[in-house]
Amino acid sequence: MADEPRVAVINTGTELLLGQTLNTHLGFLAESLFPLGLRINRQVTLPDGRVIGEALEELLPLNDLVFVTGGLGPTADDVTREIVAEMFDLPLDLDPTISDAIEARVSRRGLKMNEQLRRQAYVPRGSVVLPNPHGTAPGLYFPPGTGAAPQAALFLLPGPPRELKPMVTDVVLPILRELFPETSTRGMRNFFFCGLGESTLEARVQKHLEVCCDLEIGFCARSGEVILRCIGPEEMLQEMEGRLRPEFEEHLVSADGATLETVVVDLLKHRKQTIAVAESCTGGLLANRITDVPGASAVFEQGMVTYSNAAKSRLLGVPASLIEKHGAVSAETAAAMASGLLERAGTDFALTTTGIAGPSGGTPEKPVGTLFVGLATRNDAVRTEKFFYPTDRPTFKFVATQSALNLLRRTLALP
Amino acid sequence: MADEPRVAVINTGTELLLGQTLNTHLGFLAESLFPLGLRINRQVTLPDGRVIGEALEELLPLNDLVFVTGGLGPTADDVTREIVAEMFDLPLDLDPTISDAIEARVSRRGLKMNEQLRRQAYVPRGSVVLPNPHGTAPGLYFPPGTGAAPQAALFLLPGPPRELKPMVTDVVLPILRELFPETSTRGMRNFFFCGLGESTLEARVQKHLEVCCDLEIGFCARSGEVILRCIGPEEMLQEMEGRLRPEFEEHLVSADGATLETVVVDLLKHRKQTIAVAESCTGGLLANRITDVPGASAVFEQGMVTYSNAAKSRLLGVPASLIEKHGAVSAETAAAMASGLLERAGTDFALTTTGIAGPSGGTPEKPVGTLFVGLATRNDAVRTEKFFYPTDRPTFKFVATQSALNLLRRTLALP
Repeated sequence: MADEPRVAVINTGTELLLGQTLNTHLGFLAESLFPLGLRINRQVTLPDGRVIGEALEELLPLNDLVFVTGGLGPTADDVTREIVAEMFDLPLDLDPTISDAIEARVSRRGLKMNEQLRRQAYVPRGSVVLPNPHGTAPGLYFPPGTGAAPQAALFLLPGPPRELKPMVTDVVLPILRELFPETSTRGMRNFFFCGLGESTLEARVQKHLEVCCDLEIGFCARSGEVILRCIGPEEMLQEMEGRLRPEFEEHLVSADGATLETVVVDLLKHRKQTIAVAESCTGGLLANRITDVPGASAVFEQGMVTYSNAAKSRLLGVPASLIEKHGAVSAETAAAMASGLLERAGTDFALTTTGIAGPSGGTPEKPVGTLFVGLATRNDAVRTEKFFYPTDRPTFKFVATQSALNLLRRTLALP
Repeated sequence: MADEPRVAVINTGTELLLGQTLNTHLGFLAESLFPLGLRINRQVTLPDGRVIGEALEELLPLNDLVFVTGGLGPTADDVTREIVAEMFDLPLDLDPTISDAIEARVSRRGLKMNEQLRRQAYVPRGSVVLPNPHGTAPGLYFPPGTGAAPQAALFLLPGPPRELKPMVTDVVLPILRELFPETSTRGMRNFFFCGLGESTLEARVQKHLEVCCDLEIGFCARSGEVILRCIGPEEMLQEMEGRLRPEFEEHLVSADGATLETVVVDLLKHRKQTIAVAESCTGGLLANRITDVPGASAVFEQGMVTYSNAAKSRLLGVPASLIEKHGAVSAETAAAMASGLLERAGTDFALTTTGIAGPSGGTPEKPVGTLFVGLATRNDAVRTEKFFYPTDRPTFKFVATQSALNLLRRTLALP
């Protein structure tokens, strides 16, 4: 661990610090770097403008590899290129190839070249231009020795994700493979658990860690799921997987971080079976998650969002008398929705949700957070499960789809 | 600007640096702090563990307000509380009220109290406990003067978003209002545009900025939307809004950052009208976005995800011959889905999508990215619109719902 290259990321963008944009660069860079044995130790977000200079002065001497995203564009607050040239005492040369490419690009969009746009064609002497086929500003690479901190490699990358991502994949990673050949033989497993608390999982995993003692582990709890991350030698990761699978078959969704919807669609494809869903409280999220999986159309026949009682009766054949007797949020309604849907859709499985997402609509007997899921299959009786998730509306919807998908997964995966 | 309080945020979590989790805390904190005149100058992400100490030593002397998120939980890599107590030389006292609350909480979930869980009940002497009704670990507040840097206020907040968010809103913001009374009289408007490019918008906005010259502005382009952020005196923000509204009525969704789905549900509620949706390529995302809005059940009657051709015919009455002649992805099918749905659901509006999300399924005439949206209303002819968004699957689904919702918004909002 001690001689791992030290990696830092600086993301510039006032919009990140005002809360208007989520930082997706960090995650993308992290996932791209991991297979090369490179892990990010520190990430910093800064506003647009000259403050980038201070952060570089602080981080370059402490790291072997530094990425800066943003601040290469044409507007007045894009100053990363100029600040770095100044810091490293490198003159800026106009690159006519880049200038021509920018001119061609803007003229295709009916715009004229101007001085602001041309600023993006200046290159600090000694740096390497990283072509940007998806935008105007190229990236820049300063090899170790170019700048003030002789051990550090520095990359300046464009801010827009659709420019940054292909540049990293196509140009930056090949440079890094030469710069850091095989720094690591460690692998990673993300064991994805559903329906189990973080502390319960940690307590039950302890005994396996005594055997798999070289694994670096971490827990990450999210809504309705816990991820156990293991990093270490491949043989020990396999040993761990072999121990967890039989013990946690009710809860272990995947060993590679694959989501519930991906696992469920894969199982259905493998079995050449089909599914339909009918949702009340989850309002389309269940269908949406399933159809997020490429190729879901092979197994997903139809979805219904039957929000009103009338829609439940008209579209799924749930008797109005049943709803009146047991309530729209009940095991009986979840089951009737499932069996009615199975018959109408002609699929192998029919999965349903009904519950109270809130913030209003709760009663003393059925408070906000009450959830029923139902699953009808061709041969067996309809299964229903009851849950209680008193939380905010978006979290409730997500956790409710977790419960529904995990019921289906268990039915598909377990004998 | 010079005497604005300096604010820094430290997010801890190895999963953030491995790319497994997006940092949503930064945005939430930024939006919560802005109305108090507090803006975040720097944000740092660190792995779990003792490195938090170094970052605090660096940032506390430079800032008036520092937030740390994460590292308060029960597992071995949660060490924020202990590191801060050590740094500030404060003894840790067991708080029996917190301990009892944790025990009650875990026993409701059928679990036993243990030493690991009890760690969360220790409080550094002199800090203020911030109750956490949504989890086990309370937050902690160190008022200025408690720690090594006498000017800085320090907050330690829990990592899970559903614990952090209510704690910030209910407990942290009231403390900050006392600590920083009226530091700013500037306001912010987020003008939310749909169906317009960033550079087009920037060019058309220039003339208004010559009048509204005291506004600090920024553009932020995202999938299918552009946000123009204006910060400045309230009168000038109103002037700007008065200029933009008439000029951009086709494209301006909101002036307060409200999303398309919120605007559409509000318009429907106001008009006491109802809607049903039928989706092919968006796979439930359209219904999901509408039902994310609290109270959507007052206007949302039902949704259908008619993925297969058979489902389009059976559930919406689209003639098989029409699909055969024009294709499932066509203006004719989008229109037939809409009129069939309007009749069956009995709503005032019926909104539909059909397209090719990819990655497979494209043809030379109808490549991946082709989209048709349809809208049927009680009195007028069915409207359809064609779009082409060649992009990845999740982005396509999102942008497709933007186009559908904006068609509905324009129909509702414009005379």
